[in-house]
Amino acid sequence: MARERTAKKREEHEVEFSRIVAFSDGVFSIAITLLVLGIDIPDTLHHSQVGHALWEEREALFAYAISFAVIARFWIVHHSFFSEVKAFDGKLIGLNMLYLGFLVLIPFSSKVLGEYGGVFASVVLYSANLAAVVLIGQWMAWDARKAGLTAIDVETAREDLIRGFFIAGVFGLSVIVALFDPSIAPYMWLALFFEGRGHVIERLSRPRSS
Amino acid sequence: MARERTAKKREEHEVEFSRIVAFSDGVFSIAITLLVLGIDIPDTLHHSQVGHALWEEREALFAYAISFAVIARFWIVHHSFFSEVKAFDGKLIGLNMLYLGFLVLIPFSSKVLGEYGGVFASVVLYSANLAAVVLIGQWMAWDARKAGLTAIDVETAREDLIRGFFIAGVFGLSVIVALFDPSIAPYMWLALFFEGRGHVIERLSRPRSS
Amino acid sequence: MARERTAKKREEHEVEFSRIVAFSDGVFSIAITLLVLGIDIPDTLHHSQVGHALWEEREALFAYAISFAVIARFWIVHHSFFSEVKAFDGKLIGLNMLYLGFLVLIPFSSKVLGEYGGVFASVVLYSANLAAVVLIGQWMAWDARKAGLTAIDVETAREDLIRGFFIAGVFGLSVIVALFDPSIAPYMWLALFFEGRGHVIERLSRPRSS
Amino acid sequence: MARERTAKKREEHEVEFSRIVAFSDGVFSIAITLLVLGIDIPDTLHHSQVGHALWEEREALFAYAISFAVIARFWIVHHSFFSEVKAFDGKLIGLNMLYLGFLVLIPFSSKVLGEYGGVFASVVLYSANLAAVVLIGQWMAWDARKAGLTAIDVETAREDLIRGFFIAGVFGLSVIVALFDPSIAPYMWLALFFEGRGHVIERLSRPRSS
Repeated sequence: MARERTAKKREEHEVEFSRIVAFSDGVFSIAITLLVLGIDIPDTLHHSQVGHALWEEREALFAYAISFAVIARFWIVHHSFFSEVKAFDGKLIGLNMLYLGFLVLIPFSSKVLGEYGGVFASVVLYSANLAAVVLIGQWMAWDARKAGLTAIDVETAREDLIRGFFIAGVFGLSVIVALFDPSIAPYMWLALFFEGRGHVIERLSRPRSS
Repeated sequence: MARERTAKKREEHEVEFSRIVAFSDGVFSIAITLLVLGIDIPDTLHHSQVGHALWEEREALFAYAISFAVIARFWIVHHSFFSEVKAFDGKLIGLNMLYLGFLVLIPFSSKVLGEYGGVFASVVLYSANLAAVVLIGQWMAWDARKAGLTAIDVETAREDLIRGFFIAGVFGLSVIVALFDPSIAPYMWLALFFEGRGHVIERLSRPRSS
Repeated sequence: MARERTAKKREEHEVEFSRIVAFSDGVFSIAITLLVLGIDIPDTLHHSQVGHALWEEREALFAYAISFAVIARFWIVHHSFFSEVKAFDGKLIGLNMLYLGFLVLIPFSSKVLGEYGGVFASVVLYSANLAAVVLIGQWMAWDARKAGLTAIDVETAREDLIRGFFIAGVFGLSVIVALFDPSIAPYMWLALFFEGRGHVIERLSRPRSS
Repeated sequence: MARERTAKKREEHEVEFSRIVAFSDGVFSIAITLLVLGIDIPDTLHHSQVGHALWEEREALFAYAISFAVIARFWIVHHSFFSEVKAFDGKLIGLNMLYLGFLVLIPFSSKVLGEYGGVFASVVLYSANLAAVVLIGQWMAWDARKAGLTAIDVETAREDLIRGFFIAGVFGLSVIVALFDPSIAPYMWLALFFEGRGHVIERLSRPRSS
């Protein structure tokens, strides 16, 4: 393949490659830390109101916890994807930037969800944002593998693809649920964490014999 | 032990290990810098009111100073813990993320404390936040040592554990004190810094003969 | 040349050189992530107003998308420039700081553009900010090449210079267009992305024979 | 000296040493980028008021420019100091944290200065903040040299010390000037940049013969 030949080999351009990874890590760590700005109480309260105001932030804290876990998870996936990358070109850098572009929006979507948790528009925004990150991540991985830039085997690639569709499916489903009751939707996302050990996906993606 | 065998050796996965440490360092440095956003004065003051408004921020500055010192301290502990880690697995990465998740909340807790220093709810929030960071840090260290992922000897581990309970104890005690007078509690935290040299802990954790 | 002799060789000061690059990368990654703070909705809306408020943020999202792409692009250019740098001195560090000083203003200019997209002053601010980054970048590259600090050949340097003037020209032109209709100007900047593959520039900068 | 013997040698603890430097660089790059949050215009203006509102931000832009240059300068000094450090201990790490603790306050002081430029309290706050950073930096350098942790020769140390007192002196003088006219003080700080080439200091610190 032409792209495989023209791409820069990682071992020959280790410094350049490290800068891409370090830049991505920087963006991940800032985005995950900016989540805290979504939690805030007014600064003109009477002392007796502070406890109540903090209690009112429980939805914001819940949104914070989900978003922190989601970004941490995205980082681990990104991390393990890039540990398999053997060569890079402009297209991989471009897709990675597109991926980061949607990742950086999460603090905004998370803040909106924390303030307006039971509202259809918030759930759609949040779901769309996270599904976009997942799907672009899948696109990037699929494209890199097709171009021969990664060392990922067919088996792992299939598992990753099914996992991606599973995650995007959960968000899609939660939007449909939100049409009826937006306050239930966020609880559906918790399914992502129970599925974290990958049992269902393992069963779906393994050939029957093994 | 199974986990010791399946964990990734640090020397064989130096790049991956560095990314985990670099990500943690990034989160630490952003969280510590975001503390400054907790200090602010209104932007519509008459010129003669500026000095007074700055003086009114003295509690916010005090909260900033404590929180900066606390996060700096946490970073040093985290730093020295990870310098002893010899192998890592998914559980260590997960516990580290949980640790960071509570660390990132400190700028919020600190801001609330800076605005409502003498209020019971603020003291509880701040104490709970910091105690959670300490206890999760202990859990992570204890779990890693048990699984054979670190090179920490039994002596150091015991000292660390006692230190952890001492710190969590100070915060627990300050909540009880805050029940009677919330404005005293923050001064109790200063004990953590006098204890910084570890004399008390040394005496408690050393066997009698040495 | 005197400067070429007194400059520090990169291979002899790898750690120092890495710190400059790492500092720049840190600033890039924070600036690009702070863009998200330019998107926000009021936190006192009635639930039925949230969807509308999000829709009202479409200009802010558009400004975010343009600015993210622009900073990402600047980073790639900076990245590829520094991969060619073979030695550095105080002047290069100083020009790099000047470059970063204007880069860090982009989140502000972008926020203003997102809030007041159809206003002449916003378009001028944004255009001036981005043109300043481009021109200082050109100055830095031109100065480093002249002093013998880079390994960039004459051909690449000429291409880069034309590219720089092209980009600055687009922003200059957009200011003129904004005199008549400020809401059209941002769409002109999209030309920068179609030109991303550099076909026009290639034709302009290549000698006729090749 | 006892401390020289007990300190960790840099070459034997390169990873740990790099983490300290990387953490400091992270804090520097975030603090310098947060300066942009000090510039802001209201988001409820009529379109015809935007140009005027931006013009009103010229003091904030001036404060931004000074603060960016000052932090950039501090970074260069910090950078060159740490490139001479050969060993480190807990005290050096502690002093570095204290240094960073005052550095991180600059975005706050700078914001206040940008909003209330002609006010005595703002000038005092800003001057005190910057003088504190300079003096702690001197203390750290002096202490490290005394303990044998750096490779800095007596000549350079004397130059650095005079430079430190010169900078702290300019800020001290500006506070006295601000007693009479606070709006003049910031212009005095520009002297720091003209002195950047160090001609005055060179003349003062060199022995007569050389």
